[in-house]
Amino acid sequence: MKFGVVIFPSKKLQDLANSYRKRYDPHYALITPHLTLKNGFEASEKTVGDLANKFRHIAANTNSFTLKTSKISSFQPVNNVIYFKVDPTEELTKLHSEINELFTEEHSEYAFVPHITIGQKLSNDEHSDVYGSLRMTSINHEETVDRFHLLYQLENGSWTVYETFRLGKE
Amino acid sequence: MKFGVVIFPSKKLQDLANSYRKRYDPHYALITPHLTLKNGFEASEKTVGDLANKFRHIAANTNSFTLKTSKISSFQPVNNVIYFKVDPTEELTKLHSEINELFTEEHSEYAFVPHITIGQKLSNDEHSDVYGSLRMTSINHEETVDRFHLLYQLENGSWTVYETFRLGKE
Repeated sequence: MKFGVVIFPSKKLQDLANSYRKRYDPHYALITPHLTLKNGFEASEKTVGDLANKFRHIAANTNSFTLKTSKISSFQPVNNVIYFKVDPTEELTKLHSEINELFTEEHSEYAFVPHITIGQKLSNDEHSDVYGSLRMTSINHEETVDRFHLLYQLENGSWTVYETFRLGKE
Repeated sequence: MKFGVVIFPSKKLQDLANSYRKRYDPHYALITPHLTLKNGFEASEKTVGDLANKFRHIAANTNSFTLKTSKISSFQPVNNVIYFKVDPTEELTKLHSEINELFTEEHSEYAFVPHITIGQKLSNDEHSDVYGSLRMTSINHEETVDRFHLLYQLENGSWTVYETFRLGKE
């Protein structure tokens, strides 16, 4: 079974992201707008309980923090993903590290660039057009993140929530 | 903001439901397969914290229980919804009641018929054809339910999880 860990931002930011995703993201119908904390990974249904315990522990030891996004950016030339760039605050980076440290076998060679995807799988020409028209858009949005979610993927590619982890001591 | 409360069954049962929903349920892309505990209701973002506290309290006082489905049924002639009929066990009925009692203003006139929708918004002819071919299908499936979820709806109609409530004492 394939699992992943994400933050779902507020309805307001999700609605804004969807206004772009509808046209530019073929994953539009498979998952609501999100910030990925841990990319898809394989785990058995049996081990997921243990994993959830570890996430719960991390969540309990993490305080709520501010998520701030101010611009639209792109991963070009690495790939044609267009996204809301999210400020890499200390708390967010720490949360990402702690979650990813549970998976010691895979050392990512990439730095964590927190983002909410709004377009992907675009041809080079589409990417140029779309990013050209969006790159100067300013997104002034700030909100509080107080939870993250462990998801699993169904056979049709859609994602369903296994569990929510609320930040901070109960 | 529109909220709702559901149980997401296991991946296995969701995949099976989706094999039908793909063809017969126009909500296929808006939400993964689910059993509804509380229909969509309006609440402000401010009050949802209180509501989540109440759901957490109900969850803590509810034990895990068995979800069993054995047949495909339909709400005809009330409407053209086709669904996996879920046995109305005492625990499930109690959980449904406790959640719905939080909303005293709306006394439902309908009995709780626990179900996982696999087809809806079919024309009468489609409904007859589809239900005619599915009604004898036996679904022998049993699993343990140990959580439920509070969701909210985005502007595009899709649903995103606000919080998971695990059953039983921590």
